[in-house]
Amino acid sequence: MTDGATGGGAVESRAGDAAGGLTGRGANGTSGRRRPGRRPGTADTRGEILTAARKVFAEKGFDKATIRGIAREAGVDPALVHHYFDTKEGTFVAAMQLPVDPSVVIPMIISGPREEIGERIVRFILTMTADPKAREQVLGVLRTAMVHDQAVAMIREFFTTAVLGRVGEALGVPPLRMQAAFSQMFGVVVMRYILELEPLASVETEELVDLLGPTLQRYLGE
Amino acid sequence: MTDGATGGGAVESRAGDAAGGLTGRGANGTSGRRRPGRRPGTADTRGEILTAARKVFAEKGFDKATIRGIAREAGVDPALVHHYFDTKEGTFVAAMQLPVDPSVVIPMIISGPREEIGERIVRFILTMTADPKAREQVLGVLRTAMVHDQAVAMIREFFTTAVLGRVGEALGVPPLRMQAAFSQMFGVVVMRYILELEPLASVETEELVDLLGPTLQRYLGE
Repeated sequence: MTDGATGGGAVESRAGDAAGGLTGRGANGTSGRRRPGRRPGTADTRGEILTAARKVFAEKGFDKATIRGIAREAGVDPALVHHYFDTKEGTFVAAMQLPVDPSVVIPMIISGPREEIGERIVRFILTMTADPKAREQVLGVLRTAMVHDQAVAMIREFFTTAVLGRVGEALGVPPLRMQAAFSQMFGVVVMRYILELEPLASVETEELVDLLGPTLQRYLGE
Repeated sequence: MTDGATGGGAVESRAGDAAGGLTGRGANGTSGRRRPGRRPGTADTRGEILTAARKVFAEKGFDKATIRGIAREAGVDPALVHHYFDTKEGTFVAAMQLPVDPSVVIPMIISGPREEIGERIVRFILTMTADPKAREQVLGVLRTAMVHDQAVAMIREFFTTAVLGRVGEALGVPPLRMQAAFSQMFGVVVMRYILELEPLASVETEELVDLLGPTLQRYLGE
């Protein structure tokens, strides 16, 4: 199903959306430009950094991409990338238009009682994806990973390093168990919101917390 | 992400594959044609029935499609569709090139000890998807469901009626629990074979049976 032309189109349209949606928010960063001879007339430094970031992440993957490399691609100083997006993860989150930054959310999720970690994760994922805009952003990334080979590595590395790796390390849970838990929640989100299987698509969040919480607890509990 | 033209292309190419792969196997069914004035020169009645079936399933969904409607679309007698594919499910399985017919496999899976139903299903799904050709067929259908709106209803109805509904009825398990189990296994297959998360992508089947079996047992056990 993978098709270079289609893949390129999807990436372009995502880039276009991001640039459009962010126009005007980064105009104050113009002074940070360093590269001489840049084309004139664009005032959206933030949007240009995001466009550069998408290109670099797609080419290098998440792990090998660097703030420095993204800055070079955008023709700006690396300090400006840090200024806008703080970390490489923050840059990825903004570039892929993810609704939440794992580095912000994960500490909250793992800080509660360990015996409730399963239901806490189920509740967080279902609450986040209950918002149509946030859900579309998450599903957009996962759809891209399912149909475009060139995006798989980048998305796999982001989830492995910035999401599952971070939670697993904090909880002392081995990667395979993290992945089993992630698989369960990924499957539920797809069935609830894309395939829309009934009654799964319509039941209350708390009914799913009761049903799925013990599964995640078994994978992630001590 | 859904795009009428792309969707049509995918369906066409699937149809083309099926017709190509099956050419020559249905030549003996030529005598079953009834519709006058058909274009001459095609000798692949079985392939033509499958092409008609894909069209009818896509338009009507799985539940509302009928053998009679498929026969009408193909310009053949309904008895000929029964002759080639036995049931509506069998026709769908052949039309979508699924590697197994649920009506054949499900009775075997549900006939063993109830306390081992979880591990039996995990083992079956992982063994089936370990075969690259079978896996590509299953993943092709699931990818289609994820990106093409017009295919979602057909695939949802097939899984709901012919797979989950049948197993759930036989075991006395409510639909929501069947869907939770299906979500877990769908997620694992995607993570193992599409995102290729390590170590999930490389561990032995039996390690996953040990890890995931109890999850499915909890959903599907008595």
